Amino acid sequence: MEIIGEKINGTRKRVAQAIAEKDVEFIQDLARRQAEAGSAWLDVNAGTHPQQEPDDLVWLIETVQAVVDTPLCLDSANPQALAIAIKAVNKTPMINSISGEPQRLEGILPLVAEHDCRVIALAMDEKKISADSEARVAVVHKVMAATRAAGIPDEHIYVDPLAMTLSTNIQSGLIFFDTLRAVHAAYPEVHFTVGLSNISFGLPARSYLNRAFLTLALQAGLDSAILDPLDQELQAALLAAELLLGRDRHCLNYTRAYRAGVFNKSNGRG
Amino acid sequence: MEIIGEKINGTRKRVAQAIAEKDVEFIQDLARRQAEAGSAWLDVNAGTHPQQEPDDLVWLIETVQAVVDTPLCLDSANPQALAIAIKAVNKTPMINSISGEPQRLEGILPLVAEHDCRVIALAMDEKKISADSEARVAVVHKVMAATRAAGIPDEHIYVDPLAMTLSTNIQSGLIFFDTLRAVHAAYPEVHFTVGLSNISFGLPARSYLNRAFLTLALQAGLDSAILDPLDQELQAALLAAELLLGRDRHCLNYTRAYRAGVFNKSNGRG
Repeated sequence: MEIIGEKINGTRKRVAQAIAEKDVEFIQDLARRQAEAGSAWLDVNAGTHPQQEPDDLVWLIETVQAVVDTPLCLDSANPQALAIAIKAVNKTPMINSISGEPQRLEGILPLVAEHDCRVIALAMDEKKISADSEARVAVVHKVMAATRAAGIPDEHIYVDPLAMTLSTNIQSGLIFFDTLRAVHAAYPEVHFTVGLSNISFGLPARSYLNRAFLTLALQAGLDSAILDPLDQELQAALLAAELLLGRDRHCLNYTRAYRAGVFNKSNGRG
Repeated sequence: MEIIGEKINGTRKRVAQAIAEKDVEFIQDLARRQAEAGSAWLDVNAGTHPQQEPDDLVWLIETVQAVVDTPLCLDSANPQALAIAIKAVNKTPMINSISGEPQRLEGILPLVAEHDCRVIALAMDEKKISADSEARVAVVHKVMAATRAAGIPDEHIYVDPLAMTLSTNIQSGLIFFDTLRAVHAAYPEVHFTVGLSNISFGLPARSYLNRAFLTLALQAGLDSAILDPLDQELQAALLAAELLLGRDRHCLNYTRAYRAGVFNKSNGRG
């Protein structure tokens, strides 16, 4: 399971303030803590106006890279910002994201191909997200035709089947699992990721839903997620699910994490 | 999801003491609290020597029935004790349990048929539990042949695919899910249950594993479980999983439980 740390995101108010004030320490602290918590990638999203975005993204990249060597996930829908940002990274990045939208495909795919990047592909078209699993799979077929035509290997694609909130459609989880399984059957080399917490938007006690969703999605084949790596209860749920699914030899990761204090004792008690 | 409340079990030290001392209040308190927490059935297990068991079981049944009207799950491998206990119940009980062991089948099946009971059928033979899913399914075929021959309808059978601890075999979860799915495919009317907490025996932070197991088993088709209905974190995990699996219309159960305080706020926060 590759964790993409979600916290350096300018659409969050406190991060936006840090970007505006060029608060190096705040950003570097988020970077360090997420890296130490085992993130395979750190998402960086400037969340600013298109004109300001390239400068802010480069500042974020340089600020983060000064303290951690975790590869970055460049989070922008703006090809111009990405083209500039990609020159500032030390390690080959992931790009977040393409979709079935032709403009995004045309603008971003050449960058992905040229720099041999990983890329997140959203199962949506022209900003429309279907509530129908087959329609989402059809979008993925379109995207995969384009990535293959651009010479991008399937194993560099991280398909996001898209988690919509359960509060407006209780089928949202099932649509996600069905889409994931169908795409996996068609493209066995492709990876899967998801912005985990969308599933619980608008509902109370969200973290319980996020944990159950992660558990069930792992069984369906999710092998990456954009989440808060500092959420210990989510980490604990992930470790438990991996063990239940037969992926933790000799229970080593689980028992090591226990000794490291990942499990809150008041809840972890038998 | 039918919860079978596990707490009135004489193999637990405090309950054994209550049985020995005929501590009516202690047993009735367990009965009341489990019933209020939504148990569909209350397991009653005297846990005493065969000679003492019928008397103790009848005392437990009468003590519990004096305060709740939840049907009982008579937990014994002893046909003689069950034959006496079954005359003391007010409502048609469930019997826990039969297995592929011929002696148990011959002793208990006539009681199940005569009293039109539900019955838990363990996927094991002569007290041997196979680590192989196909062998477990073969045992279930044998048991189902016997229950059908005895005229017991399939929907009265609760198959327990058996949760062995992950600490000795990390495939234990997968063996369980595979067995459940195969039995469900062969006998679509059959129910499934499990003694949930066996999965985590010998491991630390057991409740995380129990919750992940319940979540994954629900997806596989589990529709009943023998568990502690007073464990609010487990209840919360169950509610979250049911919503994720599209089984909670308008999120009503989830949001009602939230208002009733089932979700511990310090963990439930988004």
